[in-house]
Amino acid sequence: MPGWSMDDDRSDTVVTPSAEFPPLDPAEVDTLRRVGAQWRTGVPRALPVDPTLGRYRSRPAPGRFSRLTPIALFRPEQDDRPEQDDRPEQDDRPERDDRGGRDGLVAAEPANRPDSGLGRRLGRVRRAVLGPPLASAAVLHERMRKLVALPVLSSDLLSSVAYGPEALLTVLVLAGSGALGLTLPLSAGLVLLMVAVGISYRQTIPAYPHGAGSYLVAGDNLGVGAGLTAAAGLMLDYVLTVSVSIAAGMHAVTSALPGLTPFTVPLGVLVILLLLAGNLRGVRTAGNIFVLPTYAFVAAVLGLLVVGYLRAAGRGFAPVAPPVVPATEGLGLLLVLRAFASGAVSMTGIEAVSNAVPAFRPTEWRNARTTLSWMVAMLVVLFAGLTLLIHLTGLVPRPGETLLSQLARVTFPTGPWYAVVQATTALILLLAANTAFNDFPRLLFFMARAGHAPRRFLHLGDRLAFGNGLVALAGTATVVFVAFGGHTEKLIPLYAVGVFLAFTLSQSGMVVHWRRHRGVGWRRRVLVNGVGAVLSGLVLLTAAVAKFTEGAWVVVIAVPLLVLLFHRVHRHYRALHAALALRPPPGGRQPGVRPSRVAAGPPAVSPPAVPPPAVPAPGAGSVEWEEVPQELRHLVVVPVVRLNRASMRALAYAVSLGRPTLAVHLAPEEAEADRFREQWRAWGDHVRLETIVSPYRAVIGPLAHYLAALHAAAPELVLTVVVPEVVLRRPWHRLLHSRTGHRLRRALRALPGVVVTSIPVHVVE
Amino acid sequence: MPGWSMDDDRSDTVVTPSAEFPPLDPAEVDTLRRVGAQWRTGVPRALPVDPTLGRYRSRPAPGRFSRLTPIALFRPEQDDRPEQDDRPEQDDRPERDDRGGRDGLVAAEPANRPDSGLGRRLGRVRRAVLGPPLASAAVLHERMRKLVALPVLSSDLLSSVAYGPEALLTVLVLAGSGALGLTLPLSAGLVLLMVAVGISYRQTIPAYPHGAGSYLVAGDNLGVGAGLTAAAGLMLDYVLTVSVSIAAGMHAVTSALPGLTPFTVPLGVLVILLLLAGNLRGVRTAGNIFVLPTYAFVAAVLGLLVVGYLRAAGRGFAPVAPPVVPATEGLGLLLVLRAFASGAVSMTGIEAVSNAVPAFRPTEWRNARTTLSWMVAMLVVLFAGLTLLIHLTGLVPRPGETLLSQLARVTFPTGPWYAVVQATTALILLLAANTAFNDFPRLLFFMARAGHAPRRFLHLGDRLAFGNGLVALAGTATVVFVAFGGHTEKLIPLYAVGVFLAFTLSQSGMVVHWRRHRGVGWRRRVLVNGVGAVLSGLVLLTAAVAKFTEGAWVVVIAVPLLVLLFHRVHRHYRALHAALALRPPPGGRQPGVRPSRVAAGPPAVSPPAVPPPAVPAPGAGSVEWEEVPQELRHLVVVPVVRLNRASMRALAYAVSLGRPTLAVHLAPEEAEADRFREQWRAWGDHVRLETIVSPYRAVIGPLAHYLAALHAAAPELVLTVVVPEVVLRRPWHRLLHSRTGHRLRRALRALPGVVVTSIPVHVVE
Repeated sequence: MPGWSMDDDRSDTVVTPSAEFPPLDPAEVDTLRRVGAQWRTGVPRALPVDPTLGRYRSRPAPGRFSRLTPIALFRPEQDDRPEQDDRPEQDDRPERDDRGGRDGLVAAEPANRPDSGLGRRLGRVRRAVLGPPLASAAVLHERMRKLVALPVLSSDLLSSVAYGPEALLTVLVLAGSGALGLTLPLSAGLVLLMVAVGISYRQTIPAYPHGAGSYLVAGDNLGVGAGLTAAAGLMLDYVLTVSVSIAAGMHAVTSALPGLTPFTVPLGVLVILLLLAGNLRGVRTAGNIFVLPTYAFVAAVLGLLVVGYLRAAGRGFAPVAPPVVPATEGLGLLLVLRAFASGAVSMTGIEAVSNAVPAFRPTEWRNARTTLSWMVAMLVVLFAGLTLLIHLTGLVPRPGETLLSQLARVTFPTGPWYAVVQATTALILLLAANTAFNDFPRLLFFMARAGHAPRRFLHLGDRLAFGNGLVALAGTATVVFVAFGGHTEKLIPLYAVGVFLAFTLSQSGMVVHWRRHRGVGWRRRVLVNGVGAVLSGLVLLTAAVAKFTEGAWVVVIAVPLLVLLFHRVHRHYRALHAALALRPPPGGRQPGVRPSRVAAGPPAVSPPAVPPPAVPAPGAGSVEWEEVPQELRHLVVVPVVRLNRASMRALAYAVSLGRPTLAVHLAPEEAEADRFREQWRAWGDHVRLETIVSPYRAVIGPLAHYLAALHAAAPELVLTVVVPEVVLRRPWHRLLHSRTGHRLRRALRALPGVVVTSIPVHVVE
Repeated sequence: MPGWSMDDDRSDTVVTPSAEFPPLDPAEVDTLRRVGAQWRTGVPRALPVDPTLGRYRSRPAPGRFSRLTPIALFRPEQDDRPEQDDRPEQDDRPERDDRGGRDGLVAAEPANRPDSGLGRRLGRVRRAVLGPPLASAAVLHERMRKLVALPVLSSDLLSSVAYGPEALLTVLVLAGSGALGLTLPLSAGLVLLMVAVGISYRQTIPAYPHGAGSYLVAGDNLGVGAGLTAAAGLMLDYVLTVSVSIAAGMHAVTSALPGLTPFTVPLGVLVILLLLAGNLRGVRTAGNIFVLPTYAFVAAVLGLLVVGYLRAAGRGFAPVAPPVVPATEGLGLLLVLRAFASGAVSMTGIEAVSNAVPAFRPTEWRNARTTLSWMVAMLVVLFAGLTLLIHLTGLVPRPGETLLSQLARVTFPTGPWYAVVQATTALILLLAANTAFNDFPRLLFFMARAGHAPRRFLHLGDRLAFGNGLVALAGTATVVFVAFGGHTEKLIPLYAVGVFLAFTLSQSGMVVHWRRHRGVGWRRRVLVNGVGAVLSGLVLLTAAVAKFTEGAWVVVIAVPLLVLLFHRVHRHYRALHAALALRPPPGGRQPGVRPSRVAAGPPAVSPPAVPPPAVPAPGAGSVEWEEVPQELRHLVVVPVVRLNRASMRALAYAVSLGRPTLAVHLAPEEAEADRFREQWRAWGDHVRLETIVSPYRAVIGPLAHYLAALHAAAPELVLTVVVPEVVLRRPWHRLLHSRTGHRLRRALRALPGVVVTSIPVHVVE
């Protein structure tokens, strides 16, 4: 399936710091070799300074402008690198130590420090918040025991029971308290769905032992489009996991402390920002953090259930009649379907284990599968137990207090138990939100590695966190949270669609997988995953249709738009990759045979009368010149506004390159041009000068067009435009300058074959 | 008075298009000559392309990326320029035609066109609104007859009577209708003030025949600070002239058409934008536009006065009792002073003639003085006539209708005359606002020429308008207008302070001027200007103190802040000028005597073991290298991320310069660095490679610090960093790239001696 991924290591679901530097494939290396054989340099290998800085023992003196922190930045290695011979494979490298090979330098931590005053201050704040940088070698490949993996991976799933049953009842009660009788059959349906999807995922795990994310499974079996659709669904899912979990967590808090209700939105945003900071700091999915709150939540809810059922047993399991709620809508099929789809959000997070298979101890898939079974079992117990108990206790959703809080209050009228239930609920919801902070950037990483998302999501920050992905998630989730005022029940309609989209695609992908591989018992497996796919698909359809007007339309529109965006991104990267790929030299030339017309030494200044015969025309493809140095012919152009130190420096630099040089002066009127030519002669007329009168006083346009005309007149030339650029120390001083150099560079970017060289001129004050 | 102006042509109050290119003074030319004598180039003068494009008859072919409009951009001149000999003064140039000298090229109009698609479309809109560009030669030096000058220069002054009397009464009536009796004595005082200031200005005109703006007169006689203070006052005055005139004009319109009242603010902003567009288009102070409305206004008000006084005569000049208005404030001295200061806004614009002396026909100062006398006489007639008539008619200010409108309605109950008065009033107020659009950018131009305002205000746009100044004025005036809701009476307290500040400083300056020059009758002149200064100063003080809390505090704070800003700007430009000034070479070297150690040809690649002896240490002053090419020694550094076409092109360019070249690769981990070194060897290891492992995955920081360390190790080297820069066609694609080249350039700007060369790599799609 070409086009699905740009690199071959797709099945490798391990995050690597060098993903930003994908290796060349053998064909590319071969092209590289053939291109290299064409090169004639003639430049001596001896450099005027030792590049290994081996003799560089003292601290680098900070220049007046560099304001470098005076610290040793580089650890020079033990011995100088010998001149390379041409053996291409030189792999017998002895005992390299971990901190850098024999050949290279290693940048010490301070080398990353910004060197402006403000930048340094911000850097210190950053360090205080995020901690010191972590080296690439510290990438964690933690392996989890099942008892640790269970809480780590289940917080998202189990926390869903804090809002799932309530979501179901909230819809049902719209048809009046009479409709609440449907709670139990609907819940039974949901439990069935949970078991079916759970079994379905159990089958997926051994088939994809390197990780069975929906993006991967769907893409692998159903094609790029399906994979990207699943990814879009998952991305929305992660954003909503954060928003919904924080909203539900805040609701758990305000149920216990109603005084905080007016501060729901600011407090929720604060929590998102804290989660962001924590994740930027790289608080890893270290088991310990998760173990206690998750087990505490399970214990608290189980305690609640035991006490509640004991009380119910005391009255012979006779259901308490719920308060009479008037119907605001008729009890139609649509309402029932909406209720079912709302309740289905209890299943969000069920896919966590299949994503994380490689994080288990060996045998990974077996341990993962067992953990999944436990998780689903716990989910069923908690969900069914809570729903039934709520029914028996005769509770209905009401604004201001969650159902779970009502249940806890009724069950534990006195003592600290109520507070424990609420606190553990809020805590596990926080952890559930944190799960999204782990998974969203990873998904973006894999997508970026396949070229479907911006490359910047490949970058591991100095704390080994995917900073860009984290910020993107936190930003989007904050917008959603604020836009919905932090109301859980308003967010629920959006939630189910993305999740079940991913479930459906993943299960359908597995059906295709089994049909393709036809291993032992493949028919049974097709059946199991087929049932999972059909059920998930039905819920997806239900959610999308029944809750369309309540907010699901946002997701229905967003998913195709996102997929389109991913496609566009991929197309761009593919085109760029193709455009930048090295092309083998034409077959006629034998590698190693030097073309006769090429001079041996450094390219001499050729007289203009003899153009090289084989130079390609510009505009043919995107070649501006051949990629071999001996064919380049130069013309250096120096725009000069005024004869001062800045322009003298630019002229001196240009002339010192030893290539034909032309100075260009732009004047607003002829009188000024005359004056300038006189000054030029006074200076000694060392460089050929051309003046251009710009009667409309524009500077950039005429200069750019003049250079374009020069280029058109001699397309084989490389025009190097040398521009002095005054470096100002204070940002506000920039307002006092027209930044001609900057604007010129921008204007010249569009011209092929025009190279811009900036000569910095530093000015005190 | 050194420091007052940076150039000597301060007394030249003519706007020149080449003010952005100030000439070198003789000392600077001499230094230039001595610097030039040190230069050894060795570069052949023959260029590989004809820079005059003389053989370039066909249209330049647009490259695939340049998207140039395929038009002939340059008019090549008749004959090629002969090689210059060394005669420095070669002034016997024969009959140069107006469109460009024999030596240069002239950029045709299309050369200024932007070359991006959006830019071209915006350019077309711009052309449609503003008209075709105007050549520098079209700068207008119009001379005005007195009868034309009078309306041109008096619209600002005479329009003030539309709101001046009302401003006076609005304050007085706060003390109840009883206080209105003070109107006549206060008006008498104002008339006296007008006459005194008028006479005072009459004296200024002959003393400053090149233009006697307050900025100039105060700066010339009282020092820089006073000049800048006057300038700050004037600038605020101009902004308020626009705001107040538009507000009063809108009030005149809504008085006649009350239905428009809710749209005051948007309509006012629209008018300001139209004025801006008109002035950007370069609607000059062509007399004809002004003549009719001004004379029509004067005629309409005179008609109003005649009819009004006839009616008053009919009732024996018995004043009609004004309606009883209850007092809201006590009648104290402060209130009276406030009323007086408010009425004094009638005098705004009296300085217009003295600014414009050179625009009169000869003898300029005499004609200007006569015109001033006429203007003041007309002002006195209109102001006194209106105030008295309002008093006789028993009118009081009331919200929703201007006093002038009330007066016109009472005087002309029927017929079209009321409409004529209102229409001419609105029109002259519009012209008054336009006056500020003429004067504000001119003031900024002169300030910028002396280095007290940003240089960009020197730039004459392609319609010969000071676009930056116009936009600055329109923007500020819009903010003020909107902030005050378009209410004239709320703007008045701010208005008087700036005006009278400028008056006071200008008159005081004249006192000093006469005392210094001691011509015939200097004592009398000192007395006259002294009286003017004292009276203006009293009004200034009154306005600042009495209306402080009503808004004058804004001006009282803004003026010193502006002056401080002007000083800072000036200091920056002076420092920059000094830093960029050429310094003569040390006396030891005789010009023309070649230092023995310098090679003759293009600088050879020197071995690193022999550093040149006389290289200055970096950080000593702001010299990065001597400004002579033969002393420059190069090291070219190419950061390489991945071996593709982009990096090949950068490497080829670097090597083709024929200077020692070093490639640097940054890797996030050692494994990647090893992989890269293998590829490098496969390519042929043509260039010395250094790898740096960046264990914290930062790219820019370590690279910048490595270069800084290289620079510290060999400060005499010029490091040229060659960076490939992928040019993307669609702006949104930039989001998909980390723009390393851009960030690297920014980081390297701070390093002395590091030159950055951008190699554009164009990519289709």
